[in-house]
Amino acid sequence: MGFLEKLTRIARRNDSWLCIGLDPDPEHIPPHIVEGYGDGAILEFNRRLIEATRNLVCAYKPNSAFYEGLGPHGLKLLQETCRAIPEEIPVILDAKRGDIANSAQHYARAAFEIYGADGVVVNPYMGSDAIRPFLSYGDRGVFLLCRTSNPGAQDLQDLECGGRPLYHVVAELASRWRSDAAAEVGLVMGATVPAELATVRGIVGEEMLLLVPGVGAQQGDLGGAVRAAVNSRGEGAIISASRSVLYVSQREDFAQAAQREAMRLRDDIERMRRDVA
Amino acid sequence: MGFLEKLTRIARRNDSWLCIGLDPDPEHIPPHIVEGYGDGAILEFNRRLIEATRNLVCAYKPNSAFYEGLGPHGLKLLQETCRAIPEEIPVILDAKRGDIANSAQHYARAAFEIYGADGVVVNPYMGSDAIRPFLSYGDRGVFLLCRTSNPGAQDLQDLECGGRPLYHVVAELASRWRSDAAAEVGLVMGATVPAELATVRGIVGEEMLLLVPGVGAQQGDLGGAVRAAVNSRGEGAIISASRSVLYVSQREDFAQAAQREAMRLRDDIERMRRDVA
Repeated sequence: MGFLEKLTRIARRNDSWLCIGLDPDPEHIPPHIVEGYGDGAILEFNRRLIEATRNLVCAYKPNSAFYEGLGPHGLKLLQETCRAIPEEIPVILDAKRGDIANSAQHYARAAFEIYGADGVVVNPYMGSDAIRPFLSYGDRGVFLLCRTSNPGAQDLQDLECGGRPLYHVVAELASRWRSDAAAEVGLVMGATVPAELATVRGIVGEEMLLLVPGVGAQQGDLGGAVRAAVNSRGEGAIISASRSVLYVSQREDFAQAAQREAMRLRDDIERMRRDVA
Repeated sequence: MGFLEKLTRIARRNDSWLCIGLDPDPEHIPPHIVEGYGDGAILEFNRRLIEATRNLVCAYKPNSAFYEGLGPHGLKLLQETCRAIPEEIPVILDAKRGDIANSAQHYARAAFEIYGADGVVVNPYMGSDAIRPFLSYGDRGVFLLCRTSNPGAQDLQDLECGGRPLYHVVAELASRWRSDAAAEVGLVMGATVPAELATVRGIVGEEMLLLVPGVGAQQGDLGGAVRAAVNSRGEGAIISASRSVLYVSQREDFAQAAQREAMRLRDDIERMRRDVA
């Protein structure tokens, strides 16, 4: 089954276009989990969150940084986290990789074969041959960073290149690559910039998936972002939150607290996207 | 000791500005090493290469992709490879990371604390806050991708932004960041584009380090690249080769064959850079 089909199927079943970023920061894991599970605390934390939210999401997005920061053992935890996600829910590995083709093929193998991810986030700065090894995987999704949610995004992404900002060029490249690629090509667009999101939806048309982080701790405008990002069917935009869902509570009830916050976000997104469709 | 001092000290002691990329591809490891060492074959391959070339280099540059492609075990091999490199030789982890600050600090911790790298290659697409967590490490080097050696580099890096190509903007940002950062800031400039290299040396001035891959398998012009990249003292340019040194022979003599090729490259670089100084 292709990435788009898998995503759309679970999004409709769960009535949800919410993606949860599984970014376990050792400093914010509830103390009782750390004490009870030691080296396996992060895996236990992730498992309980997945169990509590699996009916409320369309995808999970582990960010590789949080696992790499723990050393080789952390990558084992990433692998086990990916395995703990129910088969019907796509896993988007937020790796932001980009390298010459000879190296990129190893990154693609890691993402899709070692961790079994359904989708991956890549960095477009090195151009087409850095992305191509990912695009050759037929049933996967490849999301290019386009206009990101962070303050420094303006340093390069907003620069004028031939009459339009650089991130428009990335959107145009993604449109072109999408028509040739075996994989499904999408874009990462920050929720902090709804006007830019709307422009990019216009450039790429109805069918391209947009992955939209930044609605939680980064304080993106949820309503504006959802309305700008969805297509005319109210679909095609994966709204991602991490810290604001994961760390609502550090007490025994942390998973239920995350569940409540996920449900609130899911319901808000549903209401807003139905306004559009 | 700062990164620049450590690098310059070994470069002068070994009369070498050659960096070897430790990019072990399982398909190219000599069969007798694979048979003899199994899961540890890559580490043994790296150890023998390091032993054969440690007097001929100014740095080693393991590319994370080749280790990640092996799964969690590969990261253990990366860690042991970094430990096998003599203390006086800088290790530049070619990771090409870039992410929002909250995530980037975990990548910086992985590079500098888990793997003990002296330097790291990062991707500038997400801007200043994605780079800042790396820049706060006082005795380390941070190399931003600027104009890379691969064909796809032209897709974004060569685009005109306000009258100059995008990679010039990255060079200007690096110059600015270098003056404030605790870490030593440098740039990655492909050996395949010597004219662009010369222009960037002009933009960034005498003191910035340039890391120059692409002289081997990517067929960059060694003479042109060295002359364009060094400063007026004939220093400041780290010339990196990987496949062309690692895989000269797949027989018992592979390490001596790599040694001969490294010596040839080292001597060529020395001759060319002395022409300039």
